[in-house]
Amino acid sequence: MTELTAQQVQALIREGLPMAEDLDLRIDQLEPEAVLARVPFHAKLVRPGGTLSGPTIMALADAAMYAVVLGRLGRVEMAVTANLNINFLVKPLPVDLLAHARILRLSRRQAVCEVELYSQGNAEELVAHVTGTYALPLA
Amino acid sequence: MTELTAQQVQALIREGLPMAEDLDLRIDQLEPEAVLARVPFHAKLVRPGGTLSGPTIMALADAAMYAVVLGRLGRVEMAVTANLNINFLVKPLPVDLLAHARILRLSRRQAVCEVELYSQGNAEELVAHVTGTYALPLA
Amino acid sequence: MTELTAQQVQALIREGLPMAEDLDLRIDQLEPEAVLARVPFHAKLVRPGGTLSGPTIMALADAAMYAVVLGRLGRVEMAVTANLNINFLVKPLPVDLLAHARILRLSRRQAVCEVELYSQGNAEELVAHVTGTYALPLA
Amino acid sequence: MTELTAQQVQALIREGLPMAEDLDLRIDQLEPEAVLARVPFHAKLVRPGGTLSGPTIMALADAAMYAVVLGRLGRVEMAVTANLNINFLVKPLPVDLLAHARILRLSRRQAVCEVELYSQGNAEELVAHVTGTYALPLA
Repeated sequence: MTELTAQQVQALIREGLPMAEDLDLRIDQLEPEAVLARVPFHAKLVRPGGTLSGPTIMALADAAMYAVVLGRLGRVEMAVTANLNINFLVKPLPVDLLAHARILRLSRRQAVCEVELYSQGNAEELVAHVTGTYALPLA
Repeated sequence: MTELTAQQVQALIREGLPMAEDLDLRIDQLEPEAVLARVPFHAKLVRPGGTLSGPTIMALADAAMYAVVLGRLGRVEMAVTANLNINFLVKPLPVDLLAHARILRLSRRQAVCEVELYSQGNAEELVAHVTGTYALPLA
Repeated sequence: MTELTAQQVQALIREGLPMAEDLDLRIDQLEPEAVLARVPFHAKLVRPGGTLSGPTIMALADAAMYAVVLGRLGRVEMAVTANLNINFLVKPLPVDLLAHARILRLSRRQAVCEVELYSQGNAEELVAHVTGTYALPLA
Repeated sequence: MTELTAQQVQALIREGLPMAEDLDLRIDQLEPEAVLARVPFHAKLVRPGGTLSGPTIMALADAAMYAVVLGRLGRVEMAVTANLNINFLVKPLPVDLLAHARILRLSRRQAVCEVELYSQGNAEELVAHVTGTYALPLA
């Protein structure tokens, strides 16, 4: 296994997930245990009333989980989301949306992850909180 | 409150959610307690390997929950997703994806919903199962 | 693998889970894909206000999931709960609480289950709805 | 509203929840935003194989969420669990089980909480992770 850079993980996610390309999804930071991902603010993503939609938030959370798995394990392209649970907490602001993902538990068969999502500049007020499980291909 | 037709609910969702327009989301059937929603198969939604992505499935599930709430309560545009839990079960086939949503419990403050997602022609094998809560505006 | 009877599954659960003994947990019906489990009404389980507590409801749901896995796979004593998501819908009545569990998806590595919980005589009004995953020992 | 002490919250939970008394549940620390709760190790709670059962872990998590709500809001005895999602991560050790609960988001109608559970002396390895929602009585 070779370690992947943030750029490589970003490219893998965009290749694998057409929606990530539409969202202009970016991986800002990649560490062995944590990832910071971003959806830049674009007017086309915004619902009437001025906020990012729930599905956009879920897509970012899912991509951030995938990124943290790739960052930890390398190129495991067969990893798939098995479960995702999201609580929406406050409306996002009309700015970039950030997702900080970390691995809660890694076993041979799955990675359980947590993602905290927040509006840029407002990290202390979570927009949403996610836990989820990626199933890993058995070696 | 006036009852909404499937067409009206489809239009409300597409106006309120840019991603629904991108997915060409449709409301096939609308009843007081249940909804059948659909994402037609489009090549652009497909991941390498040939299946609809997780975020597409979540977006359909969320829209189906919103539709069943609108179908029951009429025009409650301030209803927002509070929680969504999804289990991904099998890969979707390269056909239309259907979502059958129903209300498990409606109270003054929220609607708890269940959504069963399956590939067209294969209703007995669930692609994903969702439960979620829509918070309702307090009268 | 030999098939287990409802009585055998009930005994396995009570041996494995001291709380099930305290709750006088019973397996009423056992089929390959579904189980009906019961917590008989006992005054000692009741909170002030007269209803079964949340943890009692969760314990019944977890046991019903375990029972449906045992009913399908036989004696897999190493199966463990990996995830459980519960929505509490209405307060239970002061009668027996029933749990109808079924398997949504069985794969080599896990069983995803759904449990509907309701007060005896009131099956059309769910007390709680649960989805959960049992991790299976890899052969 | 008068603030409650850890002892008062512990007493309220034990009065309201017979299972908490059986588990000898304790509130070690109570702060406006966070709580540390404990189930002391007792042999009678242990499954064959030597670990605390899933329902015991869920009962502790639920009590810790209730405690953090009481600690923040004072005596809101009508608060009830609306949703609880738990991921079981590693088996607990044969020692006291601790639960650190905090409020992710408090609104007029609900409190969304997170609970990290771990074996005493092993805080860096989570036994389970919980998110959940308490519905609050509307003023």
